[in-house]
Amino acid sequence: MDGASTLTAETNAMGARAKKAAGVLAHVSSDKKNAALRAAAKKIAAQKDEILRANAQEIEAAKQAGKPDAFVDRMALDPSRLKGICAALEDIAAQEDPVGRVLAEWDRPNGLKISRVATPIGVIAVIYESRPNVTVDAGAICLKSGNAAILRGGSETIETNRALYECMRAGLCASGLPEDALQLVQTTDRAAVGAILGGLDGQIDLVIPRGGKSLVKRVQDDARVAVLSHLDGICHVYVDRNADPEKAVAITVNSKMRRPGVCGAAETLLLDKATASDLWPPIAAALRSAGCELRGDAAIRVIDPSVSPASEEDWHAEYLAPILSVAVVDGVEGAVAHIETYSSGHTEAIVTENIETAERFLSQVGSAIVLHNASTQYADGGEFGLGAEIGIATGKLHARGPVGAAELTTYKNIVRGTGQVRP
Amino acid sequence: MDGASTLTAETNAMGARAKKAAGVLAHVSSDKKNAALRAAAKKIAAQKDEILRANAQEIEAAKQAGKPDAFVDRMALDPSRLKGICAALEDIAAQEDPVGRVLAEWDRPNGLKISRVATPIGVIAVIYESRPNVTVDAGAICLKSGNAAILRGGSETIETNRALYECMRAGLCASGLPEDALQLVQTTDRAAVGAILGGLDGQIDLVIPRGGKSLVKRVQDDARVAVLSHLDGICHVYVDRNADPEKAVAITVNSKMRRPGVCGAAETLLLDKATASDLWPPIAAALRSAGCELRGDAAIRVIDPSVSPASEEDWHAEYLAPILSVAVVDGVEGAVAHIETYSSGHTEAIVTENIETAERFLSQVGSAIVLHNASTQYADGGEFGLGAEIGIATGKLHARGPVGAAELTTYKNIVRGTGQVRP
Repeated sequence: MDGASTLTAETNAMGARAKKAAGVLAHVSSDKKNAALRAAAKKIAAQKDEILRANAQEIEAAKQAGKPDAFVDRMALDPSRLKGICAALEDIAAQEDPVGRVLAEWDRPNGLKISRVATPIGVIAVIYESRPNVTVDAGAICLKSGNAAILRGGSETIETNRALYECMRAGLCASGLPEDALQLVQTTDRAAVGAILGGLDGQIDLVIPRGGKSLVKRVQDDARVAVLSHLDGICHVYVDRNADPEKAVAITVNSKMRRPGVCGAAETLLLDKATASDLWPPIAAALRSAGCELRGDAAIRVIDPSVSPASEEDWHAEYLAPILSVAVVDGVEGAVAHIETYSSGHTEAIVTENIETAERFLSQVGSAIVLHNASTQYADGGEFGLGAEIGIATGKLHARGPVGAAELTTYKNIVRGTGQVRP
Repeated sequence: MDGASTLTAETNAMGARAKKAAGVLAHVSSDKKNAALRAAAKKIAAQKDEILRANAQEIEAAKQAGKPDAFVDRMALDPSRLKGICAALEDIAAQEDPVGRVLAEWDRPNGLKISRVATPIGVIAVIYESRPNVTVDAGAICLKSGNAAILRGGSETIETNRALYECMRAGLCASGLPEDALQLVQTTDRAAVGAILGGLDGQIDLVIPRGGKSLVKRVQDDARVAVLSHLDGICHVYVDRNADPEKAVAITVNSKMRRPGVCGAAETLLLDKATASDLWPPIAAALRSAGCELRGDAAIRVIDPSVSPASEEDWHAEYLAPILSVAVVDGVEGAVAHIETYSSGHTEAIVTENIETAERFLSQVGSAIVLHNASTQYADGGEFGLGAEIGIATGKLHARGPVGAAELTTYKNIVRGTGQVRP
């Protein structure tokens, strides 16, 4: 066989093993799954030195290859980060099992009892970049939800990933679960990603990309199976005429500046024209003193000529940096119209004391997450109380917003009868 | 412009109009939607003669073109079928509005109140064959769930579809809703289907095929957007050693023979080897007297040599005809193993008086619908109490089993705060 067909055979075999493991995993007890997660945490703690040694070598190689500091930082593990990874495993183990939940039940006049019960999806592929913690987090969330996982991480951290993955497999083994419930793609051949996106002969049920925009875009464009993901987080804060000024300042600054690089960070501030000239000075002062660059439309530059002009591209920009675009809009309707034009469907917030206006905004904005009087940076599975998240989804189907273990389940329809036949 | 780019421009414009209408439709009252459905029913009743005349001409043309009788029958409307179409509209209008349902709500320790609220999906394309009632049913279910619909029916009934569609548009108009909430592809150019499957420049959120296997397969293979569908309905009945013999006969015969051509019809009977020789004679007699052809594995042919031999293809076959394949299996585990190998994930039933065995089957079989002591022919939205269905889905994500208006909604996450910012 040539290289391509060898790769296809290997990845398809991986898919077949995953599918078989998923068949077992769907019916194991919560206790077994949780025991595997806890055993994995113990194993990681015990293997700490080996994991950190593998990581240190890869960091050294990345530095020598001239990778940027931010990239190297994402790769890096240290004793504290490893402790965090183990704590996440314990947290996920402590969560309620999402499999088997009765989502709905009803009776029919003919006596049939119908229920919808949460079940695992099957086989989930997670494609990620350089963060080694994803190996553990994604594997753990998939295991908790009864899904087999195929993991494909960045080549720069393949040894770190392998070391963590061996601990996860040891956990599965210790708990008597099929080791193939979790598989790491061992080749760094990029064609393996193509094979996974092709669905491995119908054996992959879902692909989740975790990483930068180019990775997500490739997965969205090329996948022949379902994808849960978000490409952009162009999030908006709208400060209404009935906003409390203090909340307006605090929520705007926090939404933008708490961590400007996360997907839930605000990129655009919309100011109601009725109160823009009153509310802008304190907001601008707070943003500037936090180190934020401001770019605005003509109307805000009339109020404050020191704001630099925003171009059309600014309204489409996910800066992921301390830069904020500012537009003046005509009330909540104007805000909704701007958001519907430019939003990526991720997260938007309104600041107002007027409940009616707030409800109009919450109803009319179609994004995955909409907030009233709270920072957009709450767009996070942990903050939602999901325990752990594998990402944020902005598609229309299946799950929207933070994706945790429960969002990685589907359902089946169970019908209990007493001999009914259809007339 | 050449023909292809003209078509692309036209279909993309259709998508843009649908998206705009969907933005309005997502926020209109239940009353307005229901009034539109009822007005459409009235209009259809008033236009009865014109609709039937258009249909009669198309039936004549199809007959002259040598279309098979079954095809012509699917095309045909008559006063009674039109009455059924109007009754379906009234039924859908009388259903609860699925939009705005609170699917879950919880509070966070920081005071944030989170809720998941059902929202429309957006723009749904329905691609169907010769049944004109789909024009009304699919349009009505999409409208009820707040989605804009783009309909593409078979060319043989385009005039009938157009006549029904004009009545639906009149209903929208009478209720003050955007007419573009429902659009019919007016060209019979098959390239229009390709354009729709391509997503119309990101404006289609979901495609639903309704029709034969070749249509569904084309949609599943070519769609670049999400699809809700089922390709096959290879449904199984398993008669356990603890089955009540009368129920076993009644459920087997009904599952196969009530309507052998529907997707929920059973194609394979699995008999527990512990009781196969006792239970087979009455089941076989009832099936034969109902006119069913029987094909079996070696074990059943030892019990009953008059059964003709089944080949490997038989276990993969969706006969849609009065033919049943029969296999002897080793208890519920053997039944589950057979089903996991050959099932299309649609519907499977167990007949047993042993609750423990039943629960094992209901838990271990992963199909979209699993039944205990009831006919597989209950795999139907109406029988589930969904009111009306647009089809049955056997994929893993979003919705499984009968797809009604509620299954055509998604959700958003609403977060209500009092000024919270993230530490």
